[in-house]
Amino acid sequence: MRKGADGSITRDGRMLILAYDHGLEHGPVDFEPVPETADPEVVFDLATHDAVTALAVQKGIAEAYYPDYADDVTLLAKLNGTSNMWSGEPDSAVNWSVDYAAEVGADAIGFTVYGGSNHEIEMVEEFREAQERAREHGMAVVMWAYPRGQGLRNAESPDTIAYSARTALELGADVAKVKHPGSREAMAHAVEVSGRTKVVMSGGSKTDDLQFLRTVESAIAAGAKGLAVGRNVFQREHPRAILDALEAVIFDGESAEDALELATRGPERAAD
Amino acid sequence: MRKGADGSITRDGRMLILAYDHGLEHGPVDFEPVPETADPEVVFDLATHDAVTALAVQKGIAEAYYPDYADDVTLLAKLNGTSNMWSGEPDSAVNWSVDYAAEVGADAIGFTVYGGSNHEIEMVEEFREAQERAREHGMAVVMWAYPRGQGLRNAESPDTIAYSARTALELGADVAKVKHPGSREAMAHAVEVSGRTKVVMSGGSKTDDLQFLRTVESAIAAGAKGLAVGRNVFQREHPRAILDALEAVIFDGESAEDALELATRGPERAAD
Amino acid sequence: MRKGADGSITRDGRMLILAYDHGLEHGPVDFEPVPETADPEVVFDLATHDAVTALAVQKGIAEAYYPDYADDVTLLAKLNGTSNMWSGEPDSAVNWSVDYAAEVGADAIGFTVYGGSNHEIEMVEEFREAQERAREHGMAVVMWAYPRGQGLRNAESPDTIAYSARTALELGADVAKVKHPGSREAMAHAVEVSGRTKVVMSGGSKTDDLQFLRTVESAIAAGAKGLAVGRNVFQREHPRAILDALEAVIFDGESAEDALELATRGPERAAD
Amino acid sequence: MRKGADGSITRDGRMLILAYDHGLEHGPVDFEPVPETADPEVVFDLATHDAVTALAVQKGIAEAYYPDYADDVTLLAKLNGTSNMWSGEPDSAVNWSVDYAAEVGADAIGFTVYGGSNHEIEMVEEFREAQERAREHGMAVVMWAYPRGQGLRNAESPDTIAYSARTALELGADVAKVKHPGSREAMAHAVEVSGRTKVVMSGGSKTDDLQFLRTVESAIAAGAKGLAVGRNVFQREHPRAILDALEAVIFDGESAEDALELATRGPERAAD
Amino acid sequence: MRKGADGSITRDGRMLILAYDHGLEHGPVDFEPVPETADPEVVFDLATHDAVTALAVQKGIAEAYYPDYADDVTLLAKLNGTSNMWSGEPDSAVNWSVDYAAEVGADAIGFTVYGGSNHEIEMVEEFREAQERAREHGMAVVMWAYPRGQGLRNAESPDTIAYSARTALELGADVAKVKHPGSREAMAHAVEVSGRTKVVMSGGSKTDDLQFLRTVESAIAAGAKGLAVGRNVFQREHPRAILDALEAVIFDGESAEDALELATRGPERAAD
Repeated sequence: MRKGADGSITRDGRMLILAYDHGLEHGPVDFEPVPETADPEVVFDLATHDAVTALAVQKGIAEAYYPDYADDVTLLAKLNGTSNMWSGEPDSAVNWSVDYAAEVGADAIGFTVYGGSNHEIEMVEEFREAQERAREHGMAVVMWAYPRGQGLRNAESPDTIAYSARTALELGADVAKVKHPGSREAMAHAVEVSGRTKVVMSGGSKTDDLQFLRTVESAIAAGAKGLAVGRNVFQREHPRAILDALEAVIFDGESAEDALELATRGPERAAD
Repeated sequence: MRKGADGSITRDGRMLILAYDHGLEHGPVDFEPVPETADPEVVFDLATHDAVTALAVQKGIAEAYYPDYADDVTLLAKLNGTSNMWSGEPDSAVNWSVDYAAEVGADAIGFTVYGGSNHEIEMVEEFREAQERAREHGMAVVMWAYPRGQGLRNAESPDTIAYSARTALELGADVAKVKHPGSREAMAHAVEVSGRTKVVMSGGSKTDDLQFLRTVESAIAAGAKGLAVGRNVFQREHPRAILDALEAVIFDGESAEDALELATRGPERAAD
Repeated sequence: MRKGADGSITRDGRMLILAYDHGLEHGPVDFEPVPETADPEVVFDLATHDAVTALAVQKGIAEAYYPDYADDVTLLAKLNGTSNMWSGEPDSAVNWSVDYAAEVGADAIGFTVYGGSNHEIEMVEEFREAQERAREHGMAVVMWAYPRGQGLRNAESPDTIAYSARTALELGADVAKVKHPGSREAMAHAVEVSGRTKVVMSGGSKTDDLQFLRTVESAIAAGAKGLAVGRNVFQREHPRAILDALEAVIFDGESAEDALELATRGPERAAD
Repeated sequence: MRKGADGSITRDGRMLILAYDHGLEHGPVDFEPVPETADPEVVFDLATHDAVTALAVQKGIAEAYYPDYADDVTLLAKLNGTSNMWSGEPDSAVNWSVDYAAEVGADAIGFTVYGGSNHEIEMVEEFREAQERAREHGMAVVMWAYPRGQGLRNAESPDTIAYSARTALELGADVAKVKHPGSREAMAHAVEVSGRTKVVMSGGSKTDDLQFLRTVESAIAAGAKGLAVGRNVFQREHPRAILDALEAVIFDGESAEDALELATRGPERAAD
Repeated sequence: MRKGADGSITRDGRMLILAYDHGLEHGPVDFEPVPETADPEVVFDLATHDAVTALAVQKGIAEAYYPDYADDVTLLAKLNGTSNMWSGEPDSAVNWSVDYAAEVGADAIGFTVYGGSNHEIEMVEEFREAQERAREHGMAVVMWAYPRGQGLRNAESPDTIAYSARTALELGADVAKVKHPGSREAMAHAVEVSGRTKVVMSGGSKTDDLQFLRTVESAIAAGAKGLAVGRNVFQREHPRAILDALEAVIFDGESAEDALELATRGPERAAD
């Protein structure tokens, strides 16, 4: 973590990262709820929403679409990722070099590390190279800190999630993207042990509007600095409405209930 | 995918890639139906047909024959490939560097990725290096997107083929070469999830004239931008006639039946 | 070992290295006895104590906090390390390049080598690269010389510890950090076979004040040049008091008993 | 294969490569029939015979002896090879870099590829690097195209040998060294599928004079461009006589019988 | 092997290499017979004896002690080696780069190759890099040619030792260090098949004075050019006396008996 390095992807120190790498990680099945989301233009359009501080995509998507949105979207280059056609011990291919990410216009990099995997060591060494190169380009570094692997009992326990968040600090990430550990206390602990590395909650699979917003509110209250979200936005019928609500919770300190009410009657809804 | 990058291997946005790497991938057995096709000159001559927008060969073939055809053939450097003498988990050796492909005169690169293989991660990382280097040379990038591997159930299902096509977009290919998924709807889905990456149908093993042309017609109607074909051309008695017919279907919008009639009575047939 | 190379991390030829890489190696569980030690600032503050000749941390901690302490703390860059979420044959990821460690301001590098592990050869070759690069930067080289691996019977025997200390000399470390082999004679033997490479005792898990100081006293008497310690300092209620005592034992030649008495009534205690 | 690249190791388009890497591949046992052949000088002297267009040796032999024969012998640097003390799945260590081979004075490189081995992919990638580097130096490229591996049924079948010869063309060798596939028709097929890559027959283990010459005559008649031979020359009592005969068969179009008669009564025999 | 390359470590074409890498390879147990030999100064002092043409040590020992002996000792940089805490298939870590060995002042490099090991290919490729880099620095190259590995029946047979010696020639070593194959005839055979590469006998574990000298005398008579010795010198009570005797046998052509008598009554003994 380097002071100020996350400036390009935060607003007032908080962030909402819209993630759209599902086409690689999960395949087109993730577009089925809202078929038009298979078209990256639809998601790039969403990323122009004021609430979104950065859009995380893989190289090919960025090459093809980012030039049309360079003035309105902040690009977070997700450097690694792997299809789920392959089903071995968790690992992730490095699909994009930092230098080329900078050339395409990215302000930040994203990198998955599966702590506990038999490939942890290799992944961490790849992270080292990417992180240090990102420093040369002045790019922010976000670690997808996901404990996962056959030797790992209880990958989703609060302790393991806190441990993962800590490794993001130890290894030099500016931001740690972690799963919500289940309670406000657990999230507060993860935030505490991450020191100056900012913690953002991972959106996960789609849930009910209010339940989702309450989880985000709780995470923010626990000290998390925001959210990295994909399906919980683009799989909704009214994605701009939920972005309105998330903006209210994350940046304006509204409660989940108030934010939801604001968003469902607001002017953005009409245009959604 | 980078806008305009495929210009050298397309005509009006469509393409017919003649592939001739069978001597490496399958061995001389693929030349048995028409023994003179063992001679690369025969296939380079075919590649001068107007229908062909690029010829895909391995390094050694290009080194030895392309200088004689540089004015009349567009070279697509197939960078990796492996003999089937070896029979392990799907993998492919990188036989040609991008820099040397550019020196030999290639306008595009071709690269196989076996999604789902235990070597997927390694192949994707090799693809990364080749793709980024191709960008520096301004070469088009074609991915042979072939799901294959012991952990992959149903490698030929429409969903898996669509997923593979999507990974071509995500990883930065300008063109995805995929097997035909079996129906027009399935091909349309693969095309849809590939966004700005163009999809071409893989020719596969030799079939009946009309059946083959109908499949191509259906693929084009579904949004595919063309065909990458080897055996379905060079294993025929009258390869120029089928190229005439393919030209009519792919570039002129003729039906399979009309194209076949045109081709079998046309002037090219006489010269075949 | 190169003459004079350890000057930046020694005082009168002796050293007290405060180690704080537990957040990576063991996880937040090591902060539970004194929860505020999860905050690196707390430990950086401790490292400003006169007794401490260097603070060993991972890259991310150094990036985030060292700039605030650059005038008061000597930075030892712990280059490798691994979480214990992963539980395979002992190995350690290289998380930090020497060049970047120098840029961040480190005066020395630390590197773990698990002699006897199936990864020994790989780790030693990584050590080679780091050690030789450190020489170019004029940085001191400290080896965490820890025998560990499935093929190693009796990793904690005096002979094995002495052997590890010797490998630190053979491979070019200026300082070997080894576990205390259990007796003054055994430590003297380890020191003897390490020649001009200085031996420091590893602090290990937290023990009783007097017992700990007596062990350190015994190590110094046996020829060790100091201590590398983490939990035995930061897991105490009064860490500055134990640093006072350690300073007396290591640098001033006091007995454990006298040092403890001095420290527990001294002025530092009040400020702790 | 690049046009004209083989000029340094051919005479009128044909070649006789004297191979002397047996000390590495088989060990001193191959010198037992004629013990003085353990001395490289003896074989370098043979290589000055007019029939020999190139001498293939490993790096150490070239370093030590080639300077004394640089005016009279054309050096073919055999870049890889492995002792048979090791008995795993076929593989071959790269013992010599192309750059250093050029510095020592080689005009050509030789490289073994075991098609069908579990190491095929790695070997082919090493071949890529060597081949492309050889192109920069303008050196000829000879592939020892030897199908071999546990997954390969019938490594010596004509089809497999033809396949191997084809891969030499596909991968960019100027010359393919293959085992004789057993009949003139089979050799003709291997030659045909190799296109512009020249095929030379591998000498193999020592056989009767006339039988050996007849095999060579048959290979030449089938379109092979020569021979790469070791034991069938240096394990003979009168190696210069067999070189005389081989010269007559390969370069002068004599029959095996005439060549043998010429050689056994010729002036060279006396000097042998 | 390159003509004249061994000049720095030979006297009149012969050599006595004092080897002192036992602290890494075997551990401090090798110093137990004469405990002060744990101190490298003691062995560096021995290396100033006129008989010694080079001292072989690992990097750390050279860094720490060679500067004090640079005027009196010729440094042979033993580049690889491994502790016996690890007990897998024979392999050896590369602990020292050639460039840094040159910087430290080495005139020659030493490199172990375990022919027959499952790591043979990797070791030989590492040897290639070191050997070619040594050529650029004009350093002599000594191969510790030690057949060893689970697939090797009879690693100590005369044939296997002769084979190993031959590989040293083939791969480009100036000097091959081999175990004595048991008889003068066997040693003569190893020497013969090594051509211009000089063979030196490995000292092995400590034996009786006269028996040891007779073995050396026999090796020299068989054509070996000297000895590489460690324990048979430094584990003796009077190491200078045995060096006197070895000098007489190796460089002056004395018999073992005469040499021993000379040495045990000579002036050096008094000073030992």
